[in-house]
Amino acid sequence: MAGLTVRQFREADVPALLTLMKALARFEGYEDDFRVTEEDLCLMGLGARPAFGALVAERQGQLEGYAAYYIIPFTYRMRPTLVLKELYVSAEARSVGAGRQLFEAVYAVAAEAGAAQMEWLVLPDNHVAKRFYKARGRFQDQAWERWGLAVRAADQ
Amino acid sequence: MAGLTVRQFREADVPALLTLMKALARFEGYEDDFRVTEEDLCLMGLGARPAFGALVAERQGQLEGYAAYYIIPFTYRMRPTLVLKELYVSAEARSVGAGRQLFEAVYAVAAEAGAAQMEWLVLPDNHVAKRFYKARGRFQDQAWERWGLAVRAADQ
Repeated sequence: MAGLTVRQFREADVPALLTLMKALARFEGYEDDFRVTEEDLCLMGLGARPAFGALVAERQGQLEGYAAYYIIPFTYRMRPTLVLKELYVSAEARSVGAGRQLFEAVYAVAAEAGAAQMEWLVLPDNHVAKRFYKARGRFQDQAWERWGLAVRAADQ
Repeated sequence: MAGLTVRQFREADVPALLTLMKALARFEGYEDDFRVTEEDLCLMGLGARPAFGALVAERQGQLEGYAAYYIIPFTYRMRPTLVLKELYVSAEARSVGAGRQLFEAVYAVAAEAGAAQMEWLVLPDNHVAKRFYKARGRFQDQAWERWGLAVRAADQ
């Protein structure tokens, strides 16, 4: 949309980016376990070897949304996989194309990195998100099931 | 079991480790896209900042199985997630506890790394694997659906 810019985040964005991350945590129900601080975002996202990347959508000097991702370098294809970790647009800015622009910008990052695939998780009852992805021709992976467990600290 | 040692892989293991990785690729049906070489394993698994780790199960000087994993450092909890990428035991050495020992050793790596969770993918029709995990109290993650798409190279 007009006036909306999507770009990599920088240090000045950190407070607003953290606010958006907290809003997503609230929306997706993991707010109580959310521990990320502004310092974490600087150290882990803006250093020489960032552990994640984040694109932000800015309009009239305000951050309206973000997409956080990380890249898995070792795969059986020897081409990286990009994991879209979080995609969020503020309530005020939905339906103006920010989500689409962020998603397509992350896709471009994946392509630039030489990734063979891009993947992400969706809450089963998030029908708005599912419609968004389906409209772009992306579907649930039926080929593999995801299993997991909680890990107790080594000293317990 | 007696005589079975589980330990981190080293350079001398690389040819046998690659053979086991190819066997798993055949078993899981991605053999045609498998591109990993011995050099890749050395460069990406044994350097100063490894992109993955692998534990091997050795018996009488032979590698009988392996578990490959990687660690995702940035999560909303600010505690890493360990992804068990591959777990494989040669046909000859199944039912002797190698899979269990490898799985438990990876769990210990996750705990040492301070991970809050460990996760992996299972083929829906791999009932032997599902029984193995269920017997250890691990279940399919029903909370999130995994979505994804193939990425085309940037220059296409």
